[in-house]
Amino acid sequence: MDPFLRIYLVAPWESWSFGDFARSLAVRLVCSGFRVVVGSRNPKRKASLFPSAAEVTFQAEAVKKADVIFVAIFREHYSTLCDLADVLVGKILVDVSNNTEINHHKESNAEYLASLFPACTVVKGFNVVSAWTLQSGARDGNKQVLICSNNQEAKRIVAEIAQVMGFTPVDMGCMSSACEIENIPLRLLPAWKIPIFLALGLFLCFFTYNLIRQVIHPYIREQKNKLYKIPIEVVNTTLPCVSYVMLSLVYLPGVLAACSQLYYGTKYRRFPDWLDQWLQHRKQIGLLSFFCAALHAVYSLCLPMRRSHRYLLIETAVKQVTGMTIWVEEEVWRMEIYISVGIIALGLLSLLAITSLPSIANSLNWREFSFIQSSLGFIALVISTLHTLTYGWSRAFDENQYKFYLPPTYTLTLLVPCTVIIAKVIFSLPCIRHRLLRIRRGWEKGRYVKFVLPSATGEFSSGETSSNV
Amino acid sequence: MDPFLRIYLVAPWESWSFGDFARSLAVRLVCSGFRVVVGSRNPKRKASLFPSAAEVTFQAEAVKKADVIFVAIFREHYSTLCDLADVLVGKILVDVSNNTEINHHKESNAEYLASLFPACTVVKGFNVVSAWTLQSGARDGNKQVLICSNNQEAKRIVAEIAQVMGFTPVDMGCMSSACEIENIPLRLLPAWKIPIFLALGLFLCFFTYNLIRQVIHPYIREQKNKLYKIPIEVVNTTLPCVSYVMLSLVYLPGVLAACSQLYYGTKYRRFPDWLDQWLQHRKQIGLLSFFCAALHAVYSLCLPMRRSHRYLLIETAVKQVTGMTIWVEEEVWRMEIYISVGIIALGLLSLLAITSLPSIANSLNWREFSFIQSSLGFIALVISTLHTLTYGWSRAFDENQYKFYLPPTYTLTLLVPCTVIIAKVIFSLPCIRHRLLRIRRGWEKGRYVKFVLPSATGEFSSGETSSNV
Amino acid sequence: MDPFLRIYLVAPWESWSFGDFARSLAVRLVCSGFRVVVGSRNPKRKASLFPSAAEVTFQAEAVKKADVIFVAIFREHYSTLCDLADVLVGKILVDVSNNTEINHHKESNAEYLASLFPACTVVKGFNVVSAWTLQSGARDGNKQVLICSNNQEAKRIVAEIAQVMGFTPVDMGCMSSACEIENIPLRLLPAWKIPIFLALGLFLCFFTYNLIRQVIHPYIREQKNKLYKIPIEVVNTTLPCVSYVMLSLVYLPGVLAACSQLYYGTKYRRFPDWLDQWLQHRKQIGLLSFFCAALHAVYSLCLPMRRSHRYLLIETAVKQVTGMTIWVEEEVWRMEIYISVGIIALGLLSLLAITSLPSIANSLNWREFSFIQSSLGFIALVISTLHTLTYGWSRAFDENQYKFYLPPTYTLTLLVPCTVIIAKVIFSLPCIRHRLLRIRRGWEKGRYVKFVLPSATGEFSSGETSSNV
Repeated sequence: MDPFLRIYLVAPWESWSFGDFARSLAVRLVCSGFRVVVGSRNPKRKASLFPSAAEVTFQAEAVKKADVIFVAIFREHYSTLCDLADVLVGKILVDVSNNTEINHHKESNAEYLASLFPACTVVKGFNVVSAWTLQSGARDGNKQVLICSNNQEAKRIVAEIAQVMGFTPVDMGCMSSACEIENIPLRLLPAWKIPIFLALGLFLCFFTYNLIRQVIHPYIREQKNKLYKIPIEVVNTTLPCVSYVMLSLVYLPGVLAACSQLYYGTKYRRFPDWLDQWLQHRKQIGLLSFFCAALHAVYSLCLPMRRSHRYLLIETAVKQVTGMTIWVEEEVWRMEIYISVGIIALGLLSLLAITSLPSIANSLNWREFSFIQSSLGFIALVISTLHTLTYGWSRAFDENQYKFYLPPTYTLTLLVPCTVIIAKVIFSLPCIRHRLLRIRRGWEKGRYVKFVLPSATGEFSSGETSSNV
Repeated sequence: MDPFLRIYLVAPWESWSFGDFARSLAVRLVCSGFRVVVGSRNPKRKASLFPSAAEVTFQAEAVKKADVIFVAIFREHYSTLCDLADVLVGKILVDVSNNTEINHHKESNAEYLASLFPACTVVKGFNVVSAWTLQSGARDGNKQVLICSNNQEAKRIVAEIAQVMGFTPVDMGCMSSACEIENIPLRLLPAWKIPIFLALGLFLCFFTYNLIRQVIHPYIREQKNKLYKIPIEVVNTTLPCVSYVMLSLVYLPGVLAACSQLYYGTKYRRFPDWLDQWLQHRKQIGLLSFFCAALHAVYSLCLPMRRSHRYLLIETAVKQVTGMTIWVEEEVWRMEIYISVGIIALGLLSLLAITSLPSIANSLNWREFSFIQSSLGFIALVISTLHTLTYGWSRAFDENQYKFYLPPTYTLTLLVPCTVIIAKVIFSLPCIRHRLLRIRRGWEKGRYVKFVLPSATGEFSSGETSSNV
Repeated sequence: MDPFLRIYLVAPWESWSFGDFARSLAVRLVCSGFRVVVGSRNPKRKASLFPSAAEVTFQAEAVKKADVIFVAIFREHYSTLCDLADVLVGKILVDVSNNTEINHHKESNAEYLASLFPACTVVKGFNVVSAWTLQSGARDGNKQVLICSNNQEAKRIVAEIAQVMGFTPVDMGCMSSACEIENIPLRLLPAWKIPIFLALGLFLCFFTYNLIRQVIHPYIREQKNKLYKIPIEVVNTTLPCVSYVMLSLVYLPGVLAACSQLYYGTKYRRFPDWLDQWLQHRKQIGLLSFFCAALHAVYSLCLPMRRSHRYLLIETAVKQVTGMTIWVEEEVWRMEIYISVGIIALGLLSLLAITSLPSIANSLNWREFSFIQSSLGFIALVISTLHTLTYGWSRAFDENQYKFYLPPTYTLTLLVPCTVIIAKVIFSLPCIRHRLLRIRRGWEKGRYVKFVLPSATGEFSSGETSSNV
């Protein structure tokens, strides 16, 4: 990197108070050892806003001194730079702007800038970085800076500037990627959309089902007003259902992928798009499952705190004054067991959630990560199943539990998880396991190639990604 | 980077056992591919402590072989190097020392070293890195290395060494910054001081207020001893007050900033210092608010576990044996609603706290981060208000609740949050919202410039920092 | 970095579906601006799997075009490359393979490859990176790439490629390190093994002890069946014991280290291996202690939710109908105090756990980190001791509590923690503290060197690592 590279920052009249992008950029550039010249129509007024090491001067003068020019103005003011077209010839213009909506304009800002100044080299970059990251980022780690341009050399120079500033430049190819790059900062958690809708959908279904069983049924059959159960009790029977089904949905696509591989006898065949999508959303589905499980725990812990619980307790006590003891050994055992099993499941899920944190996941090697997420996660699913079964106890065979002929909720939730567990057990049978491993190391049905399976347990690190589905 | 650069490490006689800085530095330098020579007065004794790839020899000999010299000794032993002054001429000395107290000496260690060896180039650096980071850091990510020197070329060389070692060098300018750099490792959570004192202050006020209402009042008026309420119940009515008020204090400065912008009709005017400080401490205030909310949840969940709760319950039961049923429908509803609303508020606050983790915050783009911290956070404030209101129910209008004419605590806490919510609602009225957006895009009152507002919803990524206040 | 460096990827016939290593490598290389040529025996079939910017062609042709060759095939197929031996002369081969078991083969894969192609330069690297990191990693931060080779120049080139791709290359020396590098991805949480066995061992001991006291003793002496206590109550008396003893084991090795330093009067003497190991596992022991404490909290909060608790409550109520009031002031106070103290201890431990997260730990300077982990942690130990003491109250002096002559569990757990606390108090006496500080700054007993102690409170940043033990 040429230490004498001079960088010019176009300082628009509509400009910066606290936290502004251009000012932050200037500060960071100065801190990284670049010579920064800021152009402004009113240098005196602006000078106080910039670090003293940055020279603030008139635009035309500033442009002459610079090799690389950061254009930190809004798209609608690009045309105000046309007066400087002569001095800009041959310079590198870095477009740092963002759009206001996804695909707002037909052409990207960078392409528009390039069309205005055909004699300049335009590089798109730094738009994914926020002013806040520029100010504080060096401490928080390395954000990517996505860069694209039609000119390799200009791209290289801007990439080096980004690297010196502590960012990781990523080459996104030629100018046609600018549109894509400009859309990135407008994205709103795209990976979470499907999982969240899935969770909400499941919640609604189970909530309605439980509402019918717990509130509507007693009202219609016995004229009992149980509406007070809605805010806590109905929600708290719904949450574990959602959590439990979501957890099994984390492991279902892996089972489907293995089935597909076994059926076609190859791993070269791409999975259908929906399965690929599903495989990529497992982390989000798992975290939502954990979130529901945690809420379920808090709701459950609140149960004995409630006024209604207290009233019911006193009522029972008063009723029993005349009567016999009411200790039902079976009920005691049921509750002791399902609570303790539930706590263990929650503890395991917490471990899974913690290892999903980027900073923890980064410090694990692949084997450790897959051991926790795949093996421990599956154990959590098995323990959750135990929790559900002990909670249900013998209620599935009790006629009184079938309200409006609707079976107890817990029997419904067992469907998907048990399928997954049975499938996993089948896949771990030696004959099927061996075949799966061979397929994942590249063996193909019908292609008779001599193949040496090195070992049954280990795999090439690469293979793991798909084998842990 | 010249791969044949030789680095010399001054190895002082007072030296390293496990985990020592100089040894860690040597290991890391060797691992990064540098040739390291360690100087010692007693090479044989020291050799075993260093990696075998590092040559350990007598000081005078070692210095001759090196281009860059790391001075890893205490300030008070700098003078022992004076014997080597002749061989040191023209070399780069890297001062890695720290002070023992903030501003302990008049001049920084680096400036003192430079005054001792005027014929050398002194660079300050690596002092913010600990021995532990040197040993394990490459795995844990990139720490900054702050560097300053009066010589640009020497600074560049040391910066490159830092980069090759896996650190991010940051140019802090000339030697006069050395003092500032040396103070950094002595800082103790400076950003947390004000928020913690704020939280403690609020805690004390509300604690006293609640103590008077819950313990002193019944004692004076009815001679009832309620002292046992202090450790849990009084604390647990104080914590939610602190948490709730703190949460509203996260959003108050944003409202004030918007007011200021609307009043002056510009965003170029800097905010007063106290407001700037406040804006920068919002994260810490929010996290303390979450910490109090979490403690409040744990305290509340403990309530039915306590012996006193059990006794009171049995007393009620015994009293009711003779009497009528005691089910108060309104009380049941109040409790079911405020508990469920409280759990939702806690769930939202947990999300906010989790996205405050550096590794999560880094993986979000600006729009996602501001959506969660600003929009979801405000929703959490609204839901907390609902929690408070349903908890309070009609008590504000009940004369018996005014003990010593003191209104119920929850009415006091509503003051600030409701102001914030009302202000936010007013700002979202189309006319005011439009004006605010124009101001944040650079429009100024009284400057009649043709201005095209591109869209009502989006902003230049830069503008967001201040617009999300 | 030469922007025209061409990279060739050996594409084996056994190959990639979703998430495969070679494809991910190709994508990342292309994104980082390299020219990538992929060799395959069947280019047409493979072309669709690679990014279009990567040229897919026949192997012999591809090799000619490349300077650096990534060998992404399994060890057992290395020999299939022998046909290309002529064109490979002088090229750099990068071995990215992993083994299937630790030390599976006598020589490492990289050494085997080097023996097959003596005319090539072999570099080991990239094996610690997973396909998933290659695809998504640039966003998640910088993983290390460990590199070794006998050729410095080749190592430098591969290191630069890694750096441009956004990784941090680490020089591991010459080819003999390949074996070690290949073992790294096969490690399974090595730092956790001892702490987990320790926790399990302690759990088993305390569990048996509590089982005897709480279940077997009443059965034998009074023929009472208390088996239902096993899943929750016995576990919940065991967990806090484990947590509390583990927490004290975090601070015990520091005390031992200080004793050793005081006894030998020097810090140059290396600690025995077991102490060194212990010192390095403190983080894991502490986190397990927190995990047990959190589980203990959840179990305790579940207590009043259980059916058995409800039954016992009603029984008491019914019995009291005829009787006097049952309010025991002392029991109320005991419980209010030990619960509130316990919550505070849990809050402190949560802070310790959160600051153990890599991303948080990285953003703290050494003084802040040691303040939280060392000072706050010790305060947490003291508060836990208070929690234990108030829980125990006067039971240690109550004869009825000695079942089978076994003292109450809590008295046993106090042993280690109290030793640690007393030792820490002794070490903070001025005379001993001063001597310890002198030793940690390098002073040695019996070496009469003029020594100036600069200050009692601060230390050289390096010294802290060992002084905070």
